[in-house]
Amino acid sequence: MTDIKSVRGALRNQWIETPSWAFGNSGTRFKVFTQDGVARNPYEKLEDAAQVHRFTGVTPSVALHIPWDRVEDYAHLAKHAAGLGLQIGAINPNVFQEAEYRLGSVCNPDPKVRRKATDHLLECAEIAGLTGSPALSLWFADGTNYPGQDDIRARQDRLSEALHETYQALPTGVRILLEYKLFEPGFYTMDVPDWGTSLLHCVDLGEKAFVLVDTGHHAPGTNIEFIVAGLMRAGRLGGFHFNSRFYADDDLMVGASDPFQLFRIIHEIVSAHGLDRSANVAFMLDQCHNLEPKIPAEIRSVMNVQEATAKALLVDHEALHAAQAAGDVLGAYAVIMDAYNTDVRPLLAEVRTEMGLDPDPMAAYARSGYAERIGAERVGGRAAGWDA
Amino acid sequence: MTDIKSVRGALRNQWIETPSWAFGNSGTRFKVFTQDGVARNPYEKLEDAAQVHRFTGVTPSVALHIPWDRVEDYAHLAKHAAGLGLQIGAINPNVFQEAEYRLGSVCNPDPKVRRKATDHLLECAEIAGLTGSPALSLWFADGTNYPGQDDIRARQDRLSEALHETYQALPTGVRILLEYKLFEPGFYTMDVPDWGTSLLHCVDLGEKAFVLVDTGHHAPGTNIEFIVAGLMRAGRLGGFHFNSRFYADDDLMVGASDPFQLFRIIHEIVSAHGLDRSANVAFMLDQCHNLEPKIPAEIRSVMNVQEATAKALLVDHEALHAAQAAGDVLGAYAVIMDAYNTDVRPLLAEVRTEMGLDPDPMAAYARSGYAERIGAERVGGRAAGWDA
Amino acid sequence: MTDIKSVRGALRNQWIETPSWAFGNSGTRFKVFTQDGVARNPYEKLEDAAQVHRFTGVTPSVALHIPWDRVEDYAHLAKHAAGLGLQIGAINPNVFQEAEYRLGSVCNPDPKVRRKATDHLLECAEIAGLTGSPALSLWFADGTNYPGQDDIRARQDRLSEALHETYQALPTGVRILLEYKLFEPGFYTMDVPDWGTSLLHCVDLGEKAFVLVDTGHHAPGTNIEFIVAGLMRAGRLGGFHFNSRFYADDDLMVGASDPFQLFRIIHEIVSAHGLDRSANVAFMLDQCHNLEPKIPAEIRSVMNVQEATAKALLVDHEALHAAQAAGDVLGAYAVIMDAYNTDVRPLLAEVRTEMGLDPDPMAAYARSGYAERIGAERVGGRAAGWDA
Amino acid sequence: MTDIKSVRGALRNQWIETPSWAFGNSGTRFKVFTQDGVARNPYEKLEDAAQVHRFTGVTPSVALHIPWDRVEDYAHLAKHAAGLGLQIGAINPNVFQEAEYRLGSVCNPDPKVRRKATDHLLECAEIAGLTGSPALSLWFADGTNYPGQDDIRARQDRLSEALHETYQALPTGVRILLEYKLFEPGFYTMDVPDWGTSLLHCVDLGEKAFVLVDTGHHAPGTNIEFIVAGLMRAGRLGGFHFNSRFYADDDLMVGASDPFQLFRIIHEIVSAHGLDRSANVAFMLDQCHNLEPKIPAEIRSVMNVQEATAKALLVDHEALHAAQAAGDVLGAYAVIMDAYNTDVRPLLAEVRTEMGLDPDPMAAYARSGYAERIGAERVGGRAAGWDA
Repeated sequence: MTDIKSVRGALRNQWIETPSWAFGNSGTRFKVFTQDGVARNPYEKLEDAAQVHRFTGVTPSVALHIPWDRVEDYAHLAKHAAGLGLQIGAINPNVFQEAEYRLGSVCNPDPKVRRKATDHLLECAEIAGLTGSPALSLWFADGTNYPGQDDIRARQDRLSEALHETYQALPTGVRILLEYKLFEPGFYTMDVPDWGTSLLHCVDLGEKAFVLVDTGHHAPGTNIEFIVAGLMRAGRLGGFHFNSRFYADDDLMVGASDPFQLFRIIHEIVSAHGLDRSANVAFMLDQCHNLEPKIPAEIRSVMNVQEATAKALLVDHEALHAAQAAGDVLGAYAVIMDAYNTDVRPLLAEVRTEMGLDPDPMAAYARSGYAERIGAERVGGRAAGWDA
Repeated sequence: MTDIKSVRGALRNQWIETPSWAFGNSGTRFKVFTQDGVARNPYEKLEDAAQVHRFTGVTPSVALHIPWDRVEDYAHLAKHAAGLGLQIGAINPNVFQEAEYRLGSVCNPDPKVRRKATDHLLECAEIAGLTGSPALSLWFADGTNYPGQDDIRARQDRLSEALHETYQALPTGVRILLEYKLFEPGFYTMDVPDWGTSLLHCVDLGEKAFVLVDTGHHAPGTNIEFIVAGLMRAGRLGGFHFNSRFYADDDLMVGASDPFQLFRIIHEIVSAHGLDRSANVAFMLDQCHNLEPKIPAEIRSVMNVQEATAKALLVDHEALHAAQAAGDVLGAYAVIMDAYNTDVRPLLAEVRTEMGLDPDPMAAYARSGYAERIGAERVGGRAAGWDA
Repeated sequence: MTDIKSVRGALRNQWIETPSWAFGNSGTRFKVFTQDGVARNPYEKLEDAAQVHRFTGVTPSVALHIPWDRVEDYAHLAKHAAGLGLQIGAINPNVFQEAEYRLGSVCNPDPKVRRKATDHLLECAEIAGLTGSPALSLWFADGTNYPGQDDIRARQDRLSEALHETYQALPTGVRILLEYKLFEPGFYTMDVPDWGTSLLHCVDLGEKAFVLVDTGHHAPGTNIEFIVAGLMRAGRLGGFHFNSRFYADDDLMVGASDPFQLFRIIHEIVSAHGLDRSANVAFMLDQCHNLEPKIPAEIRSVMNVQEATAKALLVDHEALHAAQAAGDVLGAYAVIMDAYNTDVRPLLAEVRTEMGLDPDPMAAYARSGYAERIGAERVGGRAAGWDA
Repeated sequence: MTDIKSVRGALRNQWIETPSWAFGNSGTRFKVFTQDGVARNPYEKLEDAAQVHRFTGVTPSVALHIPWDRVEDYAHLAKHAAGLGLQIGAINPNVFQEAEYRLGSVCNPDPKVRRKATDHLLECAEIAGLTGSPALSLWFADGTNYPGQDDIRARQDRLSEALHETYQALPTGVRILLEYKLFEPGFYTMDVPDWGTSLLHCVDLGEKAFVLVDTGHHAPGTNIEFIVAGLMRAGRLGGFHFNSRFYADDDLMVGASDPFQLFRIIHEIVSAHGLDRSANVAFMLDQCHNLEPKIPAEIRSVMNVQEATAKALLVDHEALHAAQAAGDVLGAYAVIMDAYNTDVRPLLAEVRTEMGLDPDPMAAYARSGYAERIGAERVGGRAAGWDA
């Protein structure tokens, strides 16, 4: 039987990181639709992120994207965050938006470009130290579009070199999270297309390098929870970039396309004790709210993760293992579905009340008037971001 | 046996349309990399397209994108084209790059937005008349990102209404080509996601509406040549937007990812006499040269289509039908592969020489000095396009 | 607001058809695992189907597969069904398990084979008349494995001819349901691979031909509810073969892989009044219980459909349309998710009690002792089926 | 410049292994079509394999499947092979065709089943020693169909245990090849679904364990040549099971669906010197000739691999590297395509003549009368295999 008290405790202690870039404009290659009141600089992004934490109580950290969030004084930015009740989360170097990176960053055939890109990684490692960030979160847009365009193995060697140099420069307490992605913007190869490639580099680097799973970065049909279980077993799951997709890297709100899949992923996490703070699995959102307003979209996303987590926590593991051991296929499935089919919204409302929060974060945010205020105040200016 | 004389004739008479937008900057949502010497306005785009025709001899028409190619005087633009030895091809309305289109254009729940979008279609129909274009080529970015976001059937009704109004306004000699696309920028639904939906609207509209097949717009595993054969059989194949992809709508050069697939598609065309001018099948390129220089990329793409066509023309249909009738699986496959495995580059070199062209278009273009000239001359200015 | 009384009514009146072949052995190409007590002939299959109806109350008809369910006296079989409280549902001709069909049935290049296959369709049309079946449900394993193996268009012509002959022979009250499938057993082409191809044939045949949607027969990423909505709009949705899949035509229990997708499909049905008996949409299961016991697997599948239906019936359409009209993306999504996140099991338990059934069909079946009885009684013999 | 003499040498020395099971009946879950003259036992399979070697000269070894190829005296079987000019290739244990394996073999929750399965692996290791086989080639049909059915991580532990026990028992000179497969027959999880999982086990086992790449076992869109390049770089590419697919694990003839992909894969092999005998990369066919006659299908498959290899050997690596280093995207692509577009059939005909073979293996086999002879002689009997 599930211990409801520990379920409540786990829900209260959940930690989900929001990304600063979710509060800036985003879009597709066809159009970036701008929104009224959108944050214009890192300080405003933190203020928006603080709203998400204010109404959900479980998003105390914010990931940064450099150079989108570049400031003169990072200590000052971290202090601003602290004043908002927030910590700085993972630092995400951006090595894809400059002209030099047309043929890649750390994998570029040109050593000068690789030097520039690696220097940016080193700068970000330093920023991690300055801001108290626990992680350097690396995603490379590097890849190729045509067969023969570059040497696949040589690019791995170049990647390895840059990673090693960065790894050596990690400040104390900072680890590397290495993300993989099947395609886009590389349409023939990506230099880190799958978890296996990421893992090979992490193992080669050392004990402070972990695989980052973005839930939208797989080929159709890939069983993500299997990957998660395998990485937990190998001790190399660094964390998640949560979002959802029907097709490719659609970057929709997590849980929007397939809430059962999200539940199954978190079930594997729960089964391997990955919610424990000691497991050091980072739960980060990474979404593009192209059509929907950004702050409520982040709140809704957090709630989707909370609901999936609550359901996963309700799985009766004793009954499940008994059915599995007995080879009772329908019985084991029933245990899983009993948890999934439970309406956990009342439970979460109670947990929120226990935490001193409004039981309905969406309604509470809507009533707060924050959206109207930023719509009126934030006129003019434009943040670096997807439409940079 | 294949009649080599008629093969040569068919290759000399091939007609491939280039798109004006291929000569402007393009990119992904991550970055639009600008290129030196890129065309800055519709006139320069036509001049670049004329280079492709100059060296290949088979690209006498150019498709326009409105408003990217909007000019004061369309008759003047058409005359400029004629002076370059070109005709204006399909007119492509763009109803996805304005703020009002955030939730769709002709399918938008707001009737004012639908009105604006339909008016643009009508404007484009008029431009088709003014420029002597044979076709209004319609692709709608309309769709939704989340379940429930809008009513799927209501959107079809709205689409139908706009299409009918446009159809009624078609100038003489102009037909509608209705393109479909599985996803992007809509990540839950697209309003015309597949050939079946396009066909339903075309049949409903009348005899001047045809399905447009973009080779990059299908789900993984879709057999495109089967669709092509079926549309030919139904008399509703309007033409192609050629490009290639390994993953999604990657918009790589046609034939780059799977030259055998391109050959099989054209084999179905040839088998159904679709290369005949009377079949009225439009062969149009629609690609994004994000990394590679644009004019040579278009030339190379044309050559890829020519090579696939030459191979398809070499298929020994008599032997093929005999093997098929006999149920000789390996024999029929061998006939197909004999044609595909033939190196048709010498044949195409001869055909080019017969046409008074250099046998090696890529080398001839490189020698021409055109790239260097536009690199030096086209400084300043910026064309409307993907980076608009 | 949703009218809970009409929801209950709709749930009581739901009609789901079970397939006789679900009660026989099934498997993959690697192995057909036999189960104790499995039905050995059509009479026993009906008896098993009656158990599903006994405990769920919503499965009053059973589809047959011919020749797997061939008997001497079909009127007698129908009478046996009636005695069990059942009707005969769709008749499913099988034209794929004889040596002659190696290169296809009605699309075979050999006219003798086509004659044999068409004769079997005619026999099945007759059986439909004899058994009171409302539908001839056609799925063709026809296709090819290699490019060039056969002529794609010629095969369509042959298919059309066989369909027309069959259509002419339909007994009064019998309609044709034409199923499509992307691949398997054809690995290059299938002759009816998609809904568009099926629809073309149905429209050509006449008003008694409808498209059958098997939920496992699409390319990855296909939006099935969009197809369903479009076919409803076109008046050509004949019904469903329900099952679920993570990869290909996995034939798992419906709702097992993606319960949210099943909900979205039924939401489109409900939105277009497709649950009304007058809409004539057939809800049929078509699954292979390779690992799990068959009768409880069918019961569980029925329950999964019921739960998805209950959730779809709970959608607040008024609120949904208001949010859609306002362009409120998150609001519309919230309406959908409110229904989906509801735990409808208590509601369904009440409905079952109202119907005089046990509120927990799985437990009631388990207690009934039926499984033990057939395990003991059905020894020896072997039914025609997947392992034929 | 490419050295044509070394190209010829490489082609003469190519070594492709045929599988005994290609010469038995095969099919889909819908139907196994039997063929006249099909081999009825391991001895006859070897005789058929000898025909493939006789006409191609590059298939001197044959993989066995146990128990399909179980004999009393393996030394005698190996001697029979030697008498036919053949060696015994990889030994393939089959742990999926017995009733006990319904819920898995070495991953089964029941320790008794695991014991039985592991014992079979040990038996096969012994057979490898007895027959002089260089490899134990392991593929596990193990997996689950439903979420919750079994514990993903526990199954990995069980797999690891069985692999370690087998590894310890490897005879001298025998290595383990561990194959992965995305799905089928497991439709929710497979226990070794991807190269990463296989690699984790291989690294854990030791230096005699290598990853086996079956070209049909990936998710749609997977870049196989990238995996191949990465495994070569990691020193863990054991070899290939060659076949081709348009959709899933279709097991069509290699090169039939996408000859350009096959070329790209072999280009990576050539680039990393993987054709050298010292690289110890095994090139094995693994196909199901469901519709086509088996011996000529194997010959054709061998020819397809030879043609792809010849093209890959013709790549001008010097020019390629120069273009890559210069960032010349179109130039590098042109180098690749120059090789691919070459008609290598004349070159291969010459190489065959040099080897004392007929330049046209298909025609020579057809003329040999072997097909007619086995059709007449092999009457009665039935080999264990796909239709077992």
